[in-house]
Amino acid sequence: MKPVKVGICGLGTVGGGTFNVLKRNAQEITRRAERAIEVAQIAARSINPQCVITDTPITDDVFEVVNNPEIDIVVELIGGYTLARELVLTAIENGKHVVTANKALIAVYGNEIFTKAEQKGVIVAFEASVAGGIPIIKAIREGLAGNRINWVTGIINGTGNFILTEMTDKGREFSAALQEAQALGYAEADPSFDVEGIDAAHKLTILASIAFGIPLQFDKAYTEGITNLASEDIRYAEALGYRIKHLGVAKRTAKGIELRVHSTLIPSDKLIANVNGVMNAVMVNGDAVGSTLYYGAGAGMEATASAVVADLVDVVRAMTSDPENRVPHLAFQPSALSHVPVLSIEDCETAYYLRIQAEDSPGVLAQVATILSKRGINIESIMQKELEEMNGKVPMILLTHNVTEAKMNDAIIALESLEGVEGKVTRIRVEQLN
Amino acid sequence: MKPVKVGICGLGTVGGGTFNVLKRNAQEITRRAERAIEVAQIAARSINPQCVITDTPITDDVFEVVNNPEIDIVVELIGGYTLARELVLTAIENGKHVVTANKALIAVYGNEIFTKAEQKGVIVAFEASVAGGIPIIKAIREGLAGNRINWVTGIINGTGNFILTEMTDKGREFSAALQEAQALGYAEADPSFDVEGIDAAHKLTILASIAFGIPLQFDKAYTEGITNLASEDIRYAEALGYRIKHLGVAKRTAKGIELRVHSTLIPSDKLIANVNGVMNAVMVNGDAVGSTLYYGAGAGMEATASAVVADLVDVVRAMTSDPENRVPHLAFQPSALSHVPVLSIEDCETAYYLRIQAEDSPGVLAQVATILSKRGINIESIMQKELEEMNGKVPMILLTHNVTEAKMNDAIIALESLEGVEGKVTRIRVEQLN
Repeated sequence: MKPVKVGICGLGTVGGGTFNVLKRNAQEITRRAERAIEVAQIAARSINPQCVITDTPITDDVFEVVNNPEIDIVVELIGGYTLARELVLTAIENGKHVVTANKALIAVYGNEIFTKAEQKGVIVAFEASVAGGIPIIKAIREGLAGNRINWVTGIINGTGNFILTEMTDKGREFSAALQEAQALGYAEADPSFDVEGIDAAHKLTILASIAFGIPLQFDKAYTEGITNLASEDIRYAEALGYRIKHLGVAKRTAKGIELRVHSTLIPSDKLIANVNGVMNAVMVNGDAVGSTLYYGAGAGMEATASAVVADLVDVVRAMTSDPENRVPHLAFQPSALSHVPVLSIEDCETAYYLRIQAEDSPGVLAQVATILSKRGINIESIMQKELEEMNGKVPMILLTHNVTEAKMNDAIIALESLEGVEGKVTRIRVEQLN
Repeated sequence: MKPVKVGICGLGTVGGGTFNVLKRNAQEITRRAERAIEVAQIAARSINPQCVITDTPITDDVFEVVNNPEIDIVVELIGGYTLARELVLTAIENGKHVVTANKALIAVYGNEIFTKAEQKGVIVAFEASVAGGIPIIKAIREGLAGNRINWVTGIINGTGNFILTEMTDKGREFSAALQEAQALGYAEADPSFDVEGIDAAHKLTILASIAFGIPLQFDKAYTEGITNLASEDIRYAEALGYRIKHLGVAKRTAKGIELRVHSTLIPSDKLIANVNGVMNAVMVNGDAVGSTLYYGAGAGMEATASAVVADLVDVVRAMTSDPENRVPHLAFQPSALSHVPVLSIEDCETAYYLRIQAEDSPGVLAQVATILSKRGINIESIMQKELEEMNGKVPMILLTHNVTEAKMNDAIIALESLEGVEGKVTRIRVEQLN
């Protein structure tokens, strides 16, 4: 059979990796896909020095690629929202299939893109957009297709996980750990997308959609970063048998879908609590399968390229099939998407870790307990750190049972107004992951 | 679209689970697959008390199902080789697609079955045959299709892992841990398939085939169980920073494919070293993606059913497509299977843990070191347990660098013939999993 012709737009880290993997593993890939996958054109502003390009035509105009009648599949690896959206929509309009690693694009414009792709009968594949080389989209969308998914949670930002691992293992503060990440090239000069949780929220939005069969709703995701996390809370959590990880959590509840990104205490003996450094891991809990976990490199030149190429092989197989029998973009048939609401953070329910700087007296403890009990908040455990006294105050650490965020907000206002309590109450959510 | 009609053969644990999941999640499955999946007939010798069957016809003759012209897909869940083989071949002959959870059948008769399926243009899906609910076949065959796979290794027998976990956590001996596993229903009255490694070898044979594109060669798999493992070796391994797990290892080397099942020391800080109890996990290392890990329940009623139902959804999508564009049964096109040899265990190369009961004298240590060095075996570390002296002998524990099994066999004969050495040398292979 004649080769499938691919146009790569963007030759940065992932684009360069994709080119190299397609070239190096050409034989292995053809043994699998039967048809060869040929890079027929590349659009790039500059040549990636890690690529040896001999006879592939190169242009600096991405629209040359999407308008090239020879190209069957456009690989969008330029990133960003604006040009990428136009490029992908034009490719679809031209009847081309698309493979993308662009989580922001899918999370924000995915509904529009998939609707158009379905009208034109083309495939838009996006395995590389979540958790790099881990085939998590495929696992949820196909591998667990027999399940009603209960929840998905994951460490889906390697930069954030590296920083937390440094803070945990070396007792560093956030700013020092961030500098280390920047020095090693794991964090950008402006790290806000990673450390503020926006990147993780993009990915979580995509995971939630394919897990529950709901439209992409990035604007409804609650996002909290790790910039305010104090190293002492990591230490106290450890003493209680927990680790702190920055998680994306998507959970089906009777009231709606919870969609939230924040630092989270999880039991130290869970496998995912031991996922360290820049590695990613996603847990998926289904009603039939129970809890499963998928682990691997969440970023990097060839790890992400691995997902791009797997998508290319999938597209090569599916492009000749009846569109009606393809795996739906968002796992569920477009007409079967559900409009169950995404809950506001106030309606989300979790357990909490609270750290209160308080006078070390039975009176204050009684007042704290009263405030919580009046709001129906049960205390699971209390730890007072007498040895860490400062200005007559000691840290009082509480773990609560599950309660809505709204009730906890109310309790925290009351706690902070107590005379024996100093400053702000630190609050970190807790998940048992059972 | 009209429902796809499925016939379930066997209503034991997995069959019952499959029936229940298809029924309970009918709506969720149809939202994904578009077509409903209807159980049109069941063949069972007795009714599983965990199933409520109201209007599905039941027969006690499996051939009624495979010869039923209404049935599109036969689900083979009766287990065993003989009848199952006949049943599956007849179903294929009748032009029906097949879904099976039968690892023994696929490992031993898979080449014959897939050849026949390809002739008849039907699909034989077997996700449930390895690691229960973990979608590991799909991950390797499709999710990592861009990679040249370097190795696959896994904890793929839950019973064995439960026993090892009991031995590790509670310091029990093998026989006591086996009794516990039997009392909890994790091990059969005759546990040999699990504890001798045969079940794991079946699964490893399948994983190796789809990872490397080689025919199924169960007869070439080297298989060692856990029945001879002593709890003291688990303790000593722990002191050296390792855990002992019963692993299937399939590795591509310059000389051929290693295919072996045995107890293995692995570094305690690896994620897979912390997979405990009846849980399964498979690591896959690819040249682009690096190391990935897939974790979940490796057995159980609904966990395995999860994989069976995912296969059904896949078959429903692919059954109307051109057979040439389907995912090949063994991941690579039948004509592209490679005939690279599977190595005998003597040609396999690993590091070793050795325990020698020896006189506590510098002379013996020198003799041991000489025997190893003469054969080019480098010692990584030595630990002597003076406090555990018995009959004037103490355990001497060595970790070696990589060496072929043949050389190690030769060294062990020499070691056992030393005057200062008592009894047999204990040898356990070591994998760093990097």
